[in-house]
Amino acid sequence: LLIIVPPAIGIIWAVYEIIAMRMIKLDGHPGRDDIVSVEGTQDKAKILRTMVEISNHIAEGATSFLVEQYKWLSLYIVLFAILIGFVVSWPATVAFVLGSVTSGACGFIGMKTAVMSNVRTCHECWGSLTKGFETALRGGSVMGLALVSLGIECLYVTMLITLAWLGSASSAPSNDKEITKMEYIFASIAGYGLGGSSIALFARVAGGIYTKAADVGADLSGKNEYGMNEDDPRNPACIADNVGDNVGDIAGMGADLFGSFAEATCAAFLLLANACNPYDKSYASDVVYKDIMAGQLMFPLLISSVGVVAGLISILITRFAFPVKTLPQIERTLKILLLISTVIMTPVVIGLALGSYPEEFTIYDDEAQVHRYQVTWWKASVAVLMGLWGGLIIGVITEYYTSHSYRPVREIAETQRVSAATGIIFGLSLGYFSNAVPVIITAACALISHKFCGMYGVSLAALGMLSTLSVTLTVDAYGPISDNAGGIAEMAEVGEATREKTDALDAAGNTTAAIGKGFAIGSAALVSIALFGAFCVRAGIESLNLLDPWAFTGLLIGALMPYIFSGMTMRSVGIAAQDMVTECMRQFPGIISGAEKPDYTRCVSIATRASIKEMVAPGALVILTPVILGMALGKNCTAGILLGALSSGIQMAISMSNTGGAWDNAKKYIEANGLPGHGKGSAAHKNAVTGDTVGDPLKDTSGPALNILIKLSAIVSVMFASVLKSSTFSTSVGGPSWAK
Amino acid sequence: LLIIVPPAIGIIWAVYEIIAMRMIKLDGHPGRDDIVSVEGTQDKAKILRTMVEISNHIAEGATSFLVEQYKWLSLYIVLFAILIGFVVSWPATVAFVLGSVTSGACGFIGMKTAVMSNVRTCHECWGSLTKGFETALRGGSVMGLALVSLGIECLYVTMLITLAWLGSASSAPSNDKEITKMEYIFASIAGYGLGGSSIALFARVAGGIYTKAADVGADLSGKNEYGMNEDDPRNPACIADNVGDNVGDIAGMGADLFGSFAEATCAAFLLLANACNPYDKSYASDVVYKDIMAGQLMFPLLISSVGVVAGLISILITRFAFPVKTLPQIERTLKILLLISTVIMTPVVIGLALGSYPEEFTIYDDEAQVHRYQVTWWKASVAVLMGLWGGLIIGVITEYYTSHSYRPVREIAETQRVSAATGIIFGLSLGYFSNAVPVIITAACALISHKFCGMYGVSLAALGMLSTLSVTLTVDAYGPISDNAGGIAEMAEVGEATREKTDALDAAGNTTAAIGKGFAIGSAALVSIALFGAFCVRAGIESLNLLDPWAFTGLLIGALMPYIFSGMTMRSVGIAAQDMVTECMRQFPGIISGAEKPDYTRCVSIATRASIKEMVAPGALVILTPVILGMALGKNCTAGILLGALSSGIQMAISMSNTGGAWDNAKKYIEANGLPGHGKGSAAHKNAVTGDTVGDPLKDTSGPALNILIKLSAIVSVMFASVLKSSTFSTSVGGPSWAK
Repeated sequence: LLIIVPPAIGIIWAVYEIIAMRMIKLDGHPGRDDIVSVEGTQDKAKILRTMVEISNHIAEGATSFLVEQYKWLSLYIVLFAILIGFVVSWPATVAFVLGSVTSGACGFIGMKTAVMSNVRTCHECWGSLTKGFETALRGGSVMGLALVSLGIECLYVTMLITLAWLGSASSAPSNDKEITKMEYIFASIAGYGLGGSSIALFARVAGGIYTKAADVGADLSGKNEYGMNEDDPRNPACIADNVGDNVGDIAGMGADLFGSFAEATCAAFLLLANACNPYDKSYASDVVYKDIMAGQLMFPLLISSVGVVAGLISILITRFAFPVKTLPQIERTLKILLLISTVIMTPVVIGLALGSYPEEFTIYDDEAQVHRYQVTWWKASVAVLMGLWGGLIIGVITEYYTSHSYRPVREIAETQRVSAATGIIFGLSLGYFSNAVPVIITAACALISHKFCGMYGVSLAALGMLSTLSVTLTVDAYGPISDNAGGIAEMAEVGEATREKTDALDAAGNTTAAIGKGFAIGSAALVSIALFGAFCVRAGIESLNLLDPWAFTGLLIGALMPYIFSGMTMRSVGIAAQDMVTECMRQFPGIISGAEKPDYTRCVSIATRASIKEMVAPGALVILTPVILGMALGKNCTAGILLGALSSGIQMAISMSNTGGAWDNAKKYIEANGLPGHGKGSAAHKNAVTGDTVGDPLKDTSGPALNILIKLSAIVSVMFASVLKSSTFSTSVGGPSWAK
Repeated sequence: LLIIVPPAIGIIWAVYEIIAMRMIKLDGHPGRDDIVSVEGTQDKAKILRTMVEISNHIAEGATSFLVEQYKWLSLYIVLFAILIGFVVSWPATVAFVLGSVTSGACGFIGMKTAVMSNVRTCHECWGSLTKGFETALRGGSVMGLALVSLGIECLYVTMLITLAWLGSASSAPSNDKEITKMEYIFASIAGYGLGGSSIALFARVAGGIYTKAADVGADLSGKNEYGMNEDDPRNPACIADNVGDNVGDIAGMGADLFGSFAEATCAAFLLLANACNPYDKSYASDVVYKDIMAGQLMFPLLISSVGVVAGLISILITRFAFPVKTLPQIERTLKILLLISTVIMTPVVIGLALGSYPEEFTIYDDEAQVHRYQVTWWKASVAVLMGLWGGLIIGVITEYYTSHSYRPVREIAETQRVSAATGIIFGLSLGYFSNAVPVIITAACALISHKFCGMYGVSLAALGMLSTLSVTLTVDAYGPISDNAGGIAEMAEVGEATREKTDALDAAGNTTAAIGKGFAIGSAALVSIALFGAFCVRAGIESLNLLDPWAFTGLLIGALMPYIFSGMTMRSVGIAAQDMVTECMRQFPGIISGAEKPDYTRCVSIATRASIKEMVAPGALVILTPVILGMALGKNCTAGILLGALSSGIQMAISMSNTGGAWDNAKKYIEANGLPGHGKGSAAHKNAVTGDTVGDPLKDTSGPALNILIKLSAIVSVMFASVLKSSTFSTSVGGPSWAK
């Protein structure tokens, strides 16, 4: 019965999508009646035309970037797919391509919806705050639901094919041919995750570089040198800045979380499939192998499927029970939305576990099936719920450290009265501190869920954290949409009143974006742990002895990886931003004198070119390091690398995101006159802008890309595990054969 | 025969010490004849009086800080010694107190010599550059040689006592009483290292907070607000700033490297002692147990002893073969000094190994003696030489990233023309990149030396890196002495010509300080690996399986520790600096108007109070975390913590030190007119000062203290290993007994 849930979800989603998209489109809405013209003087139709024009600029920039990026990525996909085909298996190639395409499509859908919603949000804010908020949220929800539903459908199809294939093996496979088939299935599942995740990495890195190069460039040239406002239409980099929000924060983040979701499900599948390993003698021939697989395999997908419905219900509840009427209500409503979805999911998870796992069954952490765990419905529930609530707590803590309603950010703002340097010292310190709770919670989730269900439990915890993904993504995408709406309002000169509303929407979005980042990192960490487990199963590592110097070397190199990666991406942002500044400064004299119009296209193409060029090296680093070093120094070295990258990457990712978020909000706090007598334009504000600029690449380029680094290095190792295991190295000892 | 080497070294050192100190003292040198008066107008005697007066201020400040600090540290020593006595053993208590006192004494000697040498250096620079350089270097050498020699003598005595004790067990111990005695000896050796290292942590943290609070405070108030020069006598924080150089960079760093040296030797002893474990049946009763111990145990001490002589010879060679006549020769001479000592040590190490290990012998990596390694003279030599030359390479790479003779720092300076923010972005990126080579070299040293001699090999590599310690310390201490000399020259108004010379001395010191830091981190990493090995031996961990969730949890928590630690120390510097700024700003109006004299004492006492108060929490974090979590979650969790702290701490330490060093030198580059048209006082210079100020706590407080964090957490675990092993937990499985 439960098997029909995923297709049903697909239908619900499709219906919602059509309705929502229809509601968002601006065409045919030439300005509603309740919209008043600005200060009674300007022409309503003219402003509307400008709005549409600017929005078209942004949409074109975003589309041209994605097209250009996907062109290069297709090259990567083709080459890598062929490599996988020859080295691993051709079914894995198909899955890899499918995963890549889904991930790319998700990014594209998100971006398209966002560039449609931003102008509509701006338009609605002109009239009423409530409608503006609803439009932005609706735009976000289209992206959130689309992404999760697409993922579920694809994984469902992959699973059905897997099961059909297993059909011929209706009892436990007994000969070599059947075992090879199992290998194929393993590899295919991993291929899907690898495809999704590697596109995510490139999207995140390129998008991140794009958005921050434009942002930093615009700030440094226009704001610092000419004292312009954010989104001043005279600043030639301002369109690129707005495009950046869409390609970095929407397409990049969408691909990122899609990757987490795909990989968490893949890890769960892999670990479950190992439990039904043909080597296991406990499956007597009278048990129909396929049925066991089906019943157990469905649980991970069911959690996600029901999560989509719960998300939809939560959005509807908040829409009617907590409408936004005044500015302070915005943030409250968004937070309630996150809370409600978590609360709804709790009993649902327990019910699903009862339905899926009526009887105890055995699962193993290693291919040799030494470490065994008896999974029951309540143990599975605990694992999922640990992740679900752990994610919420991480979000709350992240908010504490990054919102200017609390002491830490205010303290930074205070010190910025003294100097930019002290602001940066306190900000770095805040970031370091803010690791504590998320890391401890992640460790506790992993420890407890592992205690109950082994590595499979960790993948369940990851899925639990990601079960509210549709809502988290909705809220995440809401932010850049509001940010863009504000940009459009400023550029179309709709007036102060509208700008104030969009600013409030944006500010709330900043806080929830920080929550979303904490959540993305926490889930990435859990996913990586589960994938690390899957790698060890596939590579036949029963015990990873860190007294083994090869594994230890891997650990050090792995811990180094996030640093090199961050060094690369930060540098890329710096260089691209300087190019952007140079271009802007070249244009400014003409623009200021009124002789020339700002040339937005050149800035857009600078950002596009730089970001696509600079995404190659970090991507290659992440994908090649574990595989090549594994070839040279043994599979235990690869396992060490994964652990090192995970343990050091999670810390860097959290501290970077929170430091950047705190600086951003310290600036906003000062702008909102949080320090009486040190408002906008004061020395303190200038110091805060320095902090914010430094924080931009930390929180939007390097930090979030590190999530993908730890996930991708793990899944690429899973993919090539059979190669690392069988070709050059003995299965019992870790070191490379040449050193024997 | 070789057994008389250490006492001989002691005598050589004592003679050198007496001669050098006599040469450094300024009393009775009322200005030499070749010293010309400033611009012919001022009174030579008056300037000399001012110089002595200022130097007395600095000496008083430094002494009062150390006295205050040692007062609080004695409380810690007494309490912790009692704890060790009750929990571990009373001999361990004695060793712990001895280690603490030696460490404290080394810091004190270094500080005393430095505050004597600084004024003398200034005095000599007034006349000739050559003599000024020699005086600063001589001051440094007193500290360098004193520290290493004292360490060797103490460890020698500890070893003799150990051997005397073993005398009663002239053949392999056979009963329980003898085994308990072995335990005692193990614990005592660890106690010495623990004492040295825990004092080092407090000295480093308190000294680091002191020096940077004063430095940042002085910069932010005097430089930024009133446009004063560095070391302007009107700035009330300037004496505190100079005191800080002595207590942070001299006493703190001395204690730090003393700790590394003591711990590396302890780790070597522990691992050797395990090889002679009474459980081993290979030692037949006719082999005199004591003799084997003596022969093998001497090797580590011999390396260090001969290193002192080699250091002395190198200093003499450079003094006569490469005298400093012109400004550019300073840096060249210092680098040649480092190179010569490494070259001299190479054949010496091989000779010593041949002498100590004429026959192959067996060593084990675990108490159960499963992992065995056959050590020969050439394998031991390779391990030591890996460390020796690895250290030099790390130093060279560090110089590349932090000296403004090369591209990376110049690039930062270039971007500082654009803004402070891009300078900080590029600086962070540089720090992340700069990890690569040092980490890979450390990993290679560990891998290869482990391959040949097991964990004992790693401790030999650490000792190899530290064998040139006397020279490295000399050069390290030379830096702050020159810095202080410059400060005194400025405050006593000796004139431009002298100031130019001291500036050149100081600039060269900055570069070599960066080399010293790279070296300190590399050796700390190797020491920690060796101590990790010793911990596993002592705790009976034969295989640390990271698929065990308890160990994995430890890994995550361990990787978190350096972040929390850095967060604490950065924050402390920020807060103390702000107090300092407030105090300076209160005094400035009176000072500028000439109505009041600057009150140096208040600033000194602010820095003293803040630093001593703030050293408690980070210290407690490092000492308690591995022990308490080990008690609660098992010994495997402790092992995981050590690995996590090591793998994430080394990365942070290197990147922090190099980022800070690069910003400092980018500022110096701009000041030296490296960017034509953007010299001192330009916007680019202001941006560079912001970078430098942010870098101060990174490179002089948090970064170097992280070395001690990774060493101290390891040695404290070694100390309590028997408790973690035997009391609450089973020896075969990692998790805590309550979770079974």
